[in-house]
Parts: sequence; structure tokens; C-alpha cells
Amino acid sequence: VRKAPSALSALGRRTEPPPISWLMHLTLSRPRLISLAAGFIDNESLPVRETRLLVRELLRSRPGAQAALQYGTTQGDPSLRRLTCAYLRDLDGAAQANAAYAADRMIITNGSQQLLYMLTEALCDPGDIVLVEDPSYFVFLGIVQSRGLRARGIKIDNHGVDLADLERVLTSLKAKGALHRLKFVYLVSYFQNPTGITTSFDRKAGTLRLLRKYEKAAGHPIYLLEDAAYRELGFSTKDVKSSLAVRAGSDCVIYAGTFSKPFATGIRVGFGILPGPVFNSVLGIKGNHDFGTSNFLQHLLARALESGAYRKHLRQLHETYALKAKIMARAIRESFPAEVEWEPARGGLYIWARLPRGMHSGRDSRLFKRALAENVLYVPGELCYADDPARRKPNHEMRLSFGTGSGPEITEGILRLGRTLRALV
Amino acid sequence: VRKAPSALSALGRRTEPPPISWLMHLTLSRPRLISLAAGFIDNESLPVRETRLLVRELLRSRPGAQAALQYGTTQGDPSLRRLTCAYLRDLDGAAQANAAYAADRMIITNGSQQLLYMLTEALCDPGDIVLVEDPSYFVFLGIVQSRGLRARGIKIDNHGVDLADLERVLTSLKAKGALHRLKFVYLVSYFQNPTGITTSFDRKAGTLRLLRKYEKAAGHPIYLLEDAAYRELGFSTKDVKSSLAVRAGSDCVIYAGTFSKPFATGIRVGFGILPGPVFNSVLGIKGNHDFGTSNFLQHLLARALESGAYRKHLRQLHETYALKAKIMARAIRESFPAEVEWEPARGGLYIWARLPRGMHSGRDSRLFKRALAENVLYVPGELCYADDPARRKPNHEMRLSFGTGSGPEITEGILRLGRTLRALV
Repeated sequence: VRKAPSALSALGRRTEPPPISWLMHLTLSRPRLISLAAGFIDNESLPVRETRLLVRELLRSRPGAQAALQYGTTQGDPSLRRLTCAYLRDLDGAAQANAAYAADRMIITNGSQQLLYMLTEALCDPGDIVLVEDPSYFVFLGIVQSRGLRARGIKIDNHGVDLADLERVLTSLKAKGALHRLKFVYLVSYFQNPTGITTSFDRKAGTLRLLRKYEKAAGHPIYLLEDAAYRELGFSTKDVKSSLAVRAGSDCVIYAGTFSKPFATGIRVGFGILPGPVFNSVLGIKGNHDFGTSNFLQHLLARALESGAYRKHLRQLHETYALKAKIMARAIRESFPAEVEWEPARGGLYIWARLPRGMHSGRDSRLFKRALAENVLYVPGELCYADDPARRKPNHEMRLSFGTGSGPEITEGILRLGRTLRALV
Repeated sequence: VRKAPSALSALGRRTEPPPISWLMHLTLSRPRLISLAAGFIDNESLPVRETRLLVRELLRSRPGAQAALQYGTTQGDPSLRRLTCAYLRDLDGAAQANAAYAADRMIITNGSQQLLYMLTEALCDPGDIVLVEDPSYFVFLGIVQSRGLRARGIKIDNHGVDLADLERVLTSLKAKGALHRLKFVYLVSYFQNPTGITTSFDRKAGTLRLLRKYEKAAGHPIYLLEDAAYRELGFSTKDVKSSLAVRAGSDCVIYAGTFSKPFATGIRVGFGILPGPVFNSVLGIKGNHDFGTSNFLQHLLARALESGAYRKHLRQLHETYALKAKIMARAIRESFPAEVEWEPARGGLYIWARLPRGMHSGRDSRLFKRALAENVLYVPGELCYADDPARRKPNHEMRLSFGTGSGPEITEGILRLGRTLRALV
């Protein structure tokens, strides 16, 4: 290997291996490890039988099969867009004529992750600012870091983003003359990754109101990017309307959804609904990325939606996750020290545990290392915080996933973690 | 719709709808149009039966099905990487131990297009320079334009890139002190899109020699990006070794390949082999784009390679395309005026036709409009030229695809085009 200086771009130099890689490496190198870290979905409830049936139908007629195996359009399969928009309209209880859910505003993507990436490309230059929940989804924070953006964390409580804190940050950006660098607010609005918190409809409406209030000073629209990746994984709670349903708000809303988590993560199809100017730009970027997501997968999912297999699968999924969440909650109750704060999950894949402030959970902490020695892995909370100069990163939290493990694995994993915690409290 | 100023980034503003969109729009709006423009592959030879079988096997066992429906890794399925590398080694006649074909240097992508995009992200800052064949693949030129890069066209002849012209451009960049902005040379090396020309092995080796000669003055490696998208679509010629087979060259070679064109464009899986520093950066970028291509599609293709179904399908494909290329050649011979220069195709999807210099073929030309009125569409050659201030874009060429249409459609399309040409010559 020659030691030539690097030809990499600024972005190429900045881009680091994501924390996922490191966590995955730890997992693979320890066969007896129980991972409460992975964001994988439940293996046993994957739609094997459903996929067999759907693919058989999809490939039955030659014209249908040929259409699925041929290129589609950059924007995505019209049927899938139509069905997905109708589905979202239904979830939000919106009228059929509501333009916020028009299929021609939707772009199909490789998981919702690709939408987050392209949207950030379309809106943000290096040095631009995005607001994120504090804590937030760490792969999105990776995008922010690699693209040279600045993130500011907004406090959250059990109903979502703290509007007073949001306004405080907006005012402070305005006072510093930095508001024109602010492009969007990123909210993981259902069963948030990592905290499990769901944003109430009022908070969504309140966020949009605040953004509109400050957009004049910004000199351009400030968008709300609602990442609804976990929306359909709610098992013991009612669905909350999306920000698309906020009256007169939808031209500032970008809605990102996915079929990966609710159907199959091996079938990576997501989607976005975007307002005009952003839509055109993201569609052009999608043309350069890959000029369209696999048509085969899109046809498969359109069929799942149309046949009812998708909704049916969701019901089974809810039962599975409700049970696993209950198992994790019981195990935590039984084996964690009383000083640890947490809430039972109502959906999603995660329970967020807060240790006493002085007790570090980061990757260099005694806790993390001892847990690893006990063959149990969690996501250190610190990984879920943006680099925000306005505060130190909290280092006393853990993201615990009940998605991957079986019931007995979850119980045993929590038992080991409880033992480690009790030894250190 | 509010008329707020745009919040778009520089990239977001620069990114334009690709020419594909416009061509596709023309196609969809004229149901009786014969498109010789689309880069779609042949519909009738799509592997319908093969895919039915492969999916059935893939989903037969529950553990196998679960693995395919679950997340994989960002880098891509280890089996698919191993099989693809073995396949490439075999094509190049390389020894098993040859490190240039190591599976751990490979990243699986959403078609090879995604590799082109990520690589450009990893290597190029706005204002950086890439060298492209003159003409070149227009979707790559779209990436260059949207990312604010500068492209310089290198002349080509029937054996590929003109080494004297390449050296002339390198010298001129050096003289201007601009060589440090040059990051890579992009060659579509097999049955080039749009000209159909295949680069000889000598030209690949010569290119690498020149790049190495100038890299000291550049201050960093200058990479050769070999886009082999059409490699396996050769039907009446011997395969040429890739640039990975150039001795002591492989640490400057990036090889991009795909299963889309040779297998099914609806199954969008491509791959890249990358040298160390670029590999790490692109892997990090892939983590941010989508943290991995659909595992389901990857498992499907691994099975196609392993079972022999892939190679078998290629043989059928070659027969189909050889026939269609022959039909197009015969039709051109019969109906184009003698002044038009062209070569019969030996592979790929395209025939490139050169009209007399004064006869314009661009989207604003009389020829293009009259052809459209005759319900036949081609890709105007001007779309395939980079914005290079060193020369005017040629405007007297056409890309004609025999990929999409049936035999009778090809014949009729060429007949219409020939009529239009004869009326204007």
C-alpha cells in the first residue's frame, strides 16, 4: 500500500464509520453476546409466508412479472404511491381531496434513510443549522456530521419537543443573526428512536406555528421534517395524526415514512411527501443517486397494501412487540436498581433508561465494559446526542431494544445488565 | 402556494431534472411513439422464470427466508460479494489469491449508479475536475453538474480513450496549476454508453501509466473509475480484461459493475471494488445513504450466481441482443442516407450515428422535431457531452437503442428516422 496523500473531498474526509458498524462488530465478534443494541426487527415475525404468496402472485402473469423486473421511474411506482398516500390519508382521517396527501408529491426511496440524506443534500450547505430532538436518531446525526452541518438539540418531554425550548433556540439564533442558516427541524415523532416518546399533535402544530413565526427573519421557509419510521409499530396506544394534518401547515412539512420496519427490513422501501420546491430538487437528486428504487420491491409492496396483507401483518406484529415489550418491562422491574428511571414502551422498539446522573454509560465507561464482559450490549445514550456546543452530552442513559431478541434472551440480557448496574450503583 | 424565497442548498439549486425525465415524458405523452432513446433492457428476455424459481428456493426454508427479509450489513451480503469477486476474477483470468479482487474491498450498491454518486461525493469538492470520455454517460454528467464539478472531455477512437489527448489535457492542467483539483478519470469501458466503443486493455494500462506519471504533480492519487455496466452484454466479441488486471495498477482503480442490465433492471443491485482510503469513505457514505442495499435482492442474486442461473441467462440474453442489433443494423443500412456514419454493435444496447457536421440533431433541431412528428425518438448526441469550455458541444449525433423495442418496432423506428433524415440531408 502506497502512502500517497489523500484525494478525498471535505465530505469524504469527514465521513466516519457510523456507531452501528462498531456495535455490529462487537456483536459479531462475541457469539454469546445478547444484543439489546441492534435496531433489527423481530426475526420470528418477519412476513415469510406473506412474501411467498405475494411474490408468487406478482410473478404469475408474464406481463406483471416483466413490469416488476424492468426499470420504473425515478419518482417511484404510481400504484405504490397512490396506495401509500391513501393509507396515510386514512391514518390521518383526511379527506380524499386533501392535496397534502397527493401521490404526485411523493417520492419512493431506499428506506426512509435515503430520504433523510437527499433532503439534507437539497436543503443544507456546510455550516447550515438543523434542530434535532435531544437525544435523536444517531444515523441522522451521522449525516449531519458528515455533511458539515451544525445541529442544536431541543429538549423533549413525554409529549415531544418542548416548545418553550424550541422558541428559546429560535430567538437565540435570530439574535446571533444565524437564523438564515436554519433549514429544518427534525422530529422522530412516533415512539422516538431512542427514547420511545411520541410527539402529540398539539406539539406538531405548535412547532409549525413557531417555524412560521420565525421564517420571515430566516428569509426562507423553515421546514418540519417528520420522521414517522416507527408510526405503525404502536401496540398499546392510539395513532396520533401526522403534521400533514395541521391546517395550512403542509407546505412546510416533509413527511418521511418506511415499509422497512413495519413489513421487512430486508425489503428496503421508504417514501417521502415533499412540498414543491424541495420535491423538485430531491427528485433530481434521486435521479443522480440511482434514478429509482427497485421496481420489483415496489410492486411487491403495492401488492401487500392492495391485498390487505400489509395491514394483517401489522396486527400480528403488534401482538409480538406488545409481548416482547412486556417481557422487557417485567425484567427491568425485577432486576434494575430502583434509581434507574424508565417508562414501559407503548410502541416502537426501544426502552430508554436513565441512570443516576453521575453514573456513566458511554463506550468508555466502567458500566459499558462490565456489561460487555457479562456479554450484554446496549446503545450508550451519548451516541444519540448531537454535537451541540450549548450543552455537554449527557452520559448516563441507555437505549434498550426489544426488537431483536427472543423473550428468554431479552429476560436474560436485562438480568445481566441489572446485575452489572447493581454492582456499580 | 406561498412565494417564499428558497431554502435550497447550492447543490439543491443546481440539481436539474435529468434528460431522462424529459425523454420519458415525451414517451409517455405519445402512446404511438417508438422510442429508440430509452436505455431499458429487452422486456421479452427478462428472467421471469428464473426469478420465480430463485425466489421460491430463497423463501423455501424459514431461516433462509428470515435472513433475506432482515437487515444485512452496510457493505453488503458476504456471499454475494464472494461470488461476485470470484466471477470477476474468472472474467479477468486472475489468480484466486489476487488481492485486487478481494471481497472485503467490495461494496454492494443500489445499481452501479449509486457507486458513481458516492464515489464522486467521497472524492470531489465543488470546483474539482474529472475527466470523461467525449461523449460520455449523461446521467454521470448530471452528477458532475449537480455537484458543481468541472469536467473535461477526452477524445476517443475505436479502441477507447485517446492517450495522446489524455496526456495533452493532463499537461495543460499541470501548466495551469489545476492538477491538484483533478480527482479521477471516468471511463465507460465496455460497449460505451453512448458510442458502443470498448476500451482495449492497452488503453486501460496506458491510462493508468499516465495517471501515475502525473499524480506527483497532483499531490495525491488520480483514480481511474472504470464503469463496466455493459461488460456482460457483449454478443459478438471477446471479453477484454478490466483495469483491475493491470499489474501494479489496482490501487488506483475503482471498478463499478452491476447486475441491473445483465439480469434485471427491476432488481437494482450493483457493486464497486475500491482501494483502501476511498473504500472507507464510501462505506461511511453508504451508511448515511441507506446503511445497506435490500438484503432480499442481494440474497436473490447470490443464488442466481451460485446456481448457474445467472450465466445461463446471459447466454440467452446474448442471442436476443445479437439478433436485435442485427435488425437495427440492417434497417439502418436500408433506410439511412449514405452520409450517416455508424458501426454495427458488438454488444451493449446502442448504436451511435454521426450525421454530416452541419446537420443538427439536438432537442431544438428540425431533425429532432420532425422525428418526433413521425413518432420516433432518439437521444440527441449533445446530451452526452460534458460542459467543457475547451470545445463546443458536437450537435450532429444520435444514440439509438435496440434494447427496448421488438424487432418490428426497431425496423419501423429506423425506417421513420431514415425518412426524416433523407428529407433533411
